[in-house]
Amino acid sequence: TKVVRLAVIPGDGIGPEVVAATVPTLRAALEADGHRLDVTSLDWGGERFLRQGAAMPADAADLVKQTDAVLFGAVGRPDVPEHELIWGLIIGLRQQLDLAVNLRPVRAFPGVPTKVRDTDGVDLVIVRENTEGEYVGAGGVAHAGSGHDLGIEVAVHSRRAIERAAHHAFALAGRRSGRLCLVTKSNAMRYGYPLWDRVVREAGEQYPQVELETVLVDAMAARMIQAPRSLDVLLTSNLFGDILSDLAAVLAGGMGMAPSANVLPGADVPGIYEPVHGSAPDIAGKGLANPVACMLSGAMLLDDLGHTGAARRVRDAVADALRDTKHHTADLGGNATTADVASAVLHAM
Amino acid sequence: TKVVRLAVIPGDGIGPEVVAATVPTLRAALEADGHRLDVTSLDWGGERFLRQGAAMPADAADLVKQTDAVLFGAVGRPDVPEHELIWGLIIGLRQQLDLAVNLRPVRAFPGVPTKVRDTDGVDLVIVRENTEGEYVGAGGVAHAGSGHDLGIEVAVHSRRAIERAAHHAFALAGRRSGRLCLVTKSNAMRYGYPLWDRVVREAGEQYPQVELETVLVDAMAARMIQAPRSLDVLLTSNLFGDILSDLAAVLAGGMGMAPSANVLPGADVPGIYEPVHGSAPDIAGKGLANPVACMLSGAMLLDDLGHTGAARRVRDAVADALRDTKHHTADLGGNATTADVASAVLHAM
Ligand SMILES: CC(C)[C@H](C(=O)O)[C@@H](O)C(=O)O
Ligand SMILES: CC(C)[C@H](C(=O)O)[C@@H](O)C(=O)O
Repeated sequence: TKVVRLAVIPGDGIGPEVVAATVPTLRAALEADGHRLDVTSLDWGGERFLRQGAAMPADAADLVKQTDAVLFGAVGRPDVPEHELIWGLIIGLRQQLDLAVNLRPVRAFPGVPTKVRDTDGVDLVIVRENTEGEYVGAGGVAHAGSGHDLGIEVAVHSRRAIERAAHHAFALAGRRSGRLCLVTKSNAMRYGYPLWDRVVREAGEQYPQVELETVLVDAMAARMIQAPRSLDVLLTSNLFGDILSDLAAVLAGGMGMAPSANVLPGADVPGIYEPVHGSAPDIAGKGLANPVACMLSGAMLLDDLGHTGAARRVRDAVADALRDTKHHTADLGGNATTADVASAVLHAM
Repeated sequence: TKVVRLAVIPGDGIGPEVVAATVPTLRAALEADGHRLDVTSLDWGGERFLRQGAAMPADAADLVKQTDAVLFGAVGRPDVPEHELIWGLIIGLRQQLDLAVNLRPVRAFPGVPTKVRDTDGVDLVIVRENTEGEYVGAGGVAHAGSGHDLGIEVAVHSRRAIERAAHHAFALAGRRSGRLCLVTKSNAMRYGYPLWDRVVREAGEQYPQVELETVLVDAMAARMIQAPRSLDVLLTSNLFGDILSDLAAVLAGGMGMAPSANVLPGADVPGIYEPVHGSAPDIAGKGLANPVACMLSGAMLLDDLGHTGAARRVRDAVADALRDTKHHTADLGGNATTADVASAVLHAM
């Protein structure tokens, strides 16, 4: 018997609902192998900010390091300044734990309707650099308030961060199709993205079995919809990964279907697993949220902890449940509740 | 009789083919009103670079200013360094003429197949800031070649540039649906995009009849595909406008259908009208290119010069021709040639 020590951060809005639907699924999947799930719930998020002036405690990274992995719901509420939750929690934690890579797989499940035609068999992964690029928070506003304000935003792309993401992406591509697609914008941005092109090409010399293609981000946005099956593993920057992963989610039926993992490959640091969607305050508390993105994030978590059988069990059960439209939530055009999906998945398992 | 003095820059690859298909259409549309088209052809582009070491002459902006408008095909060829054509021509000319705004309308034509379901009636315009943002070319690489290279890319967003684009977008939205959607990424980028949010909100006070919505770029990428009819006028930065316009083109059948106009509103400076697609070297010289994006760019040009009747004639003829799949080029799944489309459009007119 192994014990998985899981920290959960339900957060705000629909976060607690999708997390509550997911934890029993992960537990059942582990118990089927004779293992145990030990859950520590952390009250970090908007409500904590309103009560205590900070979305998470100062020693958040240390607390999290005492667990094996983190399952994160979502944060964001209308009465809390966004940056308190973004920089004070999500981006803050990613950066403090130095979670170098954000993995965003997108897979089309049979039976799930999509706005894009011909998505059968879509199965791709976006490897997003997760610590820097346009997200470093550097810059300032010159001449503020003078009528000649100049907003300056500085993006930083380091060889180290690019290499970490690149090696992960090449290795992943090697285990999958042998094709890696690097997404940059080197025709218009002259320094950061040309460095990406160079560093990734160099890293690729260690992976002769992987074929590297470089595509401009604008062309990739169109290709993602027009020829998604031509894509397998994508490697890109923090900003482009953010944009392309929301777009790719559409291929699977939308944001309710898109999981993610923030990890530091090769290190003994807990990863943060989270649905790509936000806190969706408009539907919060109504039991309408689609828990699939959170469940699939949980499956990634199990995989990374070596519980690959349990992970497969979760994924297969989700796939089974989704085959029947009566288990589709409103975002998929159905009228199942979060709890309906949770019990259908448990039942399928 | 009025004379339209048109400069054409056919450029490279399929550029000359789509321009050749477009000019007679514009001429016919003008002549139907008793006007004349006077064409000056400029040999700027990759071939000129190979011959003379520069893609355009040093006094390019002055030459162009002697005409009423520019019709631009595309540039890019494998044997010419990309930046010579991008900075040395397209971006260079946009910046030298100070063409503040890039307008990228996307309209779904009946009869044209798309990869996205339910695109009937899609009709939106992206107003892209065209002179700065992530495209200023500022930055550098620190520690280059040391193994610790740091690529630094500086984006500049000025109140002046934001205001110019914003006023154009608000006025356009006022003439259309009364709805304007600003696309930024202020939760992750702290200086440039928050300035956009502030300046656009302030500009909006002069347009009480226009409703302003602000959306994050990642969410917009998904919404563009999932709910395109919820969109009318979008206002955004240079980089985001680039990405979102390629994506939006998919709603109309792809890059072969997407026109654009680079203009300096309210000033007597010739605009540059160009299809959004590139030079497509793979299909160049085969007569396979779709000339519709270029023709629709020509229609925008006629509109801006006050020849609205002629512009409508071009658009209606294109719409007519496209209703029949036998006038669809390969990108639309058909087997018409560029010349077939050109004669079908002329015939429809
Ligand atoms: C909340 C936001 C800062 C975040 C991001 O852009 O990284 C989110 O959109 C995501 O994709 O995880
Ligand atoms: C060629 C390139 C620099 C250009 C851009 O990004 O502006 C093109 O993609 C466009 O959209 O006009």
